[in-house]
Amino acid sequence: MSTRPSSTPPAPTWDAIEAAHARIAPKIHRTPVLRSATLSAMCGAELFFKCENLQKTGSFKIRGATNAIFSLSDEEASRGIVTHSSGNHAAAVSCAASWRGIAAWIVMPKNAPAMKCKAVEAYGGKITFCEPKVSARNEAAARIQAETGAVMIHPYDDDRIIAGQATAAKELLEEAGELDALLAPVSGGGLLSGSALSAKHMRPGIGVFGCEPAKADDAFRSMQSGILQSLESSDTIADGLRASLAPRTFAILQQSLAGIFLVGEEEIVNAMGLVWERLKVVTEPSSAIALAPLLKPETVQLISRDRSGPGRLKIGIILSGGNVDLRSLPFR
Amino acid sequence: MSTRPSSTPPAPTWDAIEAAHARIAPKIHRTPVLRSATLSAMCGAELFFKCENLQKTGSFKIRGATNAIFSLSDEEASRGIVTHSSGNHAAAVSCAASWRGIAAWIVMPKNAPAMKCKAVEAYGGKITFCEPKVSARNEAAARIQAETGAVMIHPYDDDRIIAGQATAAKELLEEAGELDALLAPVSGGGLLSGSALSAKHMRPGIGVFGCEPAKADDAFRSMQSGILQSLESSDTIADGLRASLAPRTFAILQQSLAGIFLVGEEEIVNAMGLVWERLKVVTEPSSAIALAPLLKPETVQLISRDRSGPGRLKIGIILSGGNVDLRSLPFR
Repeated sequence: MSTRPSSTPPAPTWDAIEAAHARIAPKIHRTPVLRSATLSAMCGAELFFKCENLQKTGSFKIRGATNAIFSLSDEEASRGIVTHSSGNHAAAVSCAASWRGIAAWIVMPKNAPAMKCKAVEAYGGKITFCEPKVSARNEAAARIQAETGAVMIHPYDDDRIIAGQATAAKELLEEAGELDALLAPVSGGGLLSGSALSAKHMRPGIGVFGCEPAKADDAFRSMQSGILQSLESSDTIADGLRASLAPRTFAILQQSLAGIFLVGEEEIVNAMGLVWERLKVVTEPSSAIALAPLLKPETVQLISRDRSGPGRLKIGIILSGGNVDLRSLPFR
Repeated sequence: MSTRPSSTPPAPTWDAIEAAHARIAPKIHRTPVLRSATLSAMCGAELFFKCENLQKTGSFKIRGATNAIFSLSDEEASRGIVTHSSGNHAAAVSCAASWRGIAAWIVMPKNAPAMKCKAVEAYGGKITFCEPKVSARNEAAARIQAETGAVMIHPYDDDRIIAGQATAAKELLEEAGELDALLAPVSGGGLLSGSALSAKHMRPGIGVFGCEPAKADDAFRSMQSGILQSLESSDTIADGLRASLAPRTFAILQQSLAGIFLVGEEEIVNAMGLVWERLKVVTEPSSAIALAPLLKPETVQLISRDRSGPGRLKIGIILSGGNVDLRSLPFR
C-alpha cells in the first residue's frame, strides 16, 4: 500500500480518543456486547457483537457528534453547527446540539429514508434537502455555512468525529478482550478509521477489516489503487453507506487496515435477517453488512492465516445502527 | 384477596432462587438492561427493560428449564423428560436437555408458530402435536410419560421452574436498584410468580403487576374471584400467553401481586412497534405486552399512588422473549 501523503494531518492520538471517551461517556449508552452460539457456530469463530444499534439515536454516530459539539468553545457553539448526512449523523448532530442547546442545520439527500428525516426533526434539526450526490451535499452545506456563520461538523473528515467513533471499538476490546479480528462497515470511514486506531493501539496484532457494499465500492478501489476514489451516488440497500472516504479517513485506513470485503445486496439482506432472528436486535442493512463476509468459510480461513494461537478465532463485529422502517422490511 | 389454600405447597424460598441462579448462571446469558429516553418520556417514568428476548433460545424460559433439568438426579435424567408448551418452554427444555445429553419429548399445540416448532427440532426435541386446548396438552403429556417413564417438567406448575424464572427479576433489581414497580407478562404465571418472589424479597415495597391479553384473561379472573379460573383456548396474537395459571403460581400471585392489567390486541401491536423502533430489539407480542399498560397515563398515576419518595417513578419491565416470524409481522 502507498505511504501517507505528507499533506495529511496527523490522526487523532490515543490521548484524544481517551479524552473523547471521558467527554461523551456520561451522555451516551455503554452498549452491550452480545453473543450468539448459533451465529458463532455458523461462522466457525467466536463472535462478539458490539451493539451500537442500541445506542442513543440508534447508531454510533452520537459518539462523534457529541465529542465534536462538546469540544466547541462557547463562542463557536453560539454560532450553531452545520453538517450533511444521509441520516444517522444528521440525527446524532441534531440530538447532541439539542443537549448543548445550540442550533443545527442539516443537509440531507432527498432520497434519505423518511424515518431518518423524522428523527432529525424530532431533535430540532433544521433540514435542507439536496440532490443525492456527494458534490451536492458539500455545496449545500458550504452555502449554509456562509449564510449563517455556523461551524461545519463534517460527518467524518474531522478528527473530533473520528476520535468519538473510535470509542465503540475501545469499549468492545475492553469487554471482549483478545480479539483476532474486528469487522466494521465502511462508508466515509469515520467508524472504520476510529475503530482501527483504537483496535491497533489496544491490540497491535489484530486484523481490522472494512465491509462495503459492492454497489458502493469506492473505499475498496481507493485502498487498491492507493489514490482516493470518489463515489457520486449509489442505490445500495445499505443507505448509510453511500458516502465516500475523505483525506483523513483514507490516510488512517492506509496505515492500519488489513482489507475490505465487498458484499452483495442479497448477502446484506441475508445477514440482516440472521442478526434479527438470532441476535434479536433491530439492525439496518448498513450495519448487518459487517456479519456478511463471515458467513463465507473462506473469510474466516483468510483471517486465521496469520494467527498462531490455539482455539477458535475471536472476532468482533460492530453493529453500527438500527434505524430502519419497520413498514418496509426486505425479508421474504 | 383470598388467603392461600392449605393444600398448596410452599413457594420456592430465597435460598432456592439463589441456588437456581448459581446453577444456571454459567450456562445462560446475563441479559442487558436497556433504557430509552424517548419511551421513558412517553410514559412519564424511568423505564428499565430486562431483555430476556436476548436470552439463549430467545426467551427467559431457558432459566427455569436449565434449573429443572440440572436439578435432576442421574437416574431421573437417564429416563429423559417430557413437557408441553406453546413454544418457548418447548425450545428451552429441548436446549437444556441437549446440554445435559438426555432425551426430551415435547407436546405442542398444532397452532404453535412454525418457527418455534423448528427451534425445538433444531435442539433435538421430539414433538407430538395436539389440539390447541389446555386439556389436550395435559393428556398427551401424561400419555407420553406413561409410555416412556420420562420425568414430567411442567412449564410452570413446578418449583424448580419458578425458582429459575425468578432469576431474571433478581438480575434486574441487582442492576437497576430501587424500582417502584415491576411489570411482566402473565400466562401460566411462572415468570410473574418468580419475578414477584425475587422482587418482594429484594425490595418489599415494590409493586409487582401482571400484563395479560384481554382475550386470554384467566389470571385476571382468578385474582378477582379468588378461585383458580381456567382458559380452554384463545387466539390472541400473544401466542405465548394462551395458557392458564396453575395452583402453585396462583398461590404465589395471591400473596404478592399488586394487580393485573388487561391489554387489547391493538395495544399489544402498538407496544411491540415502539419496542422495536425505540429500543431496537426484536420482541414477540407476548413480551411487548408488558410495556402497553404504561402508555396510558392512568397506569403510571395508579402505580405512583402509594409512593412517598421524590423524583420520577422507576419501573422495571421484563421483555420475556423475541421469537417471532420476520416474514409475518403485524406492523402496518
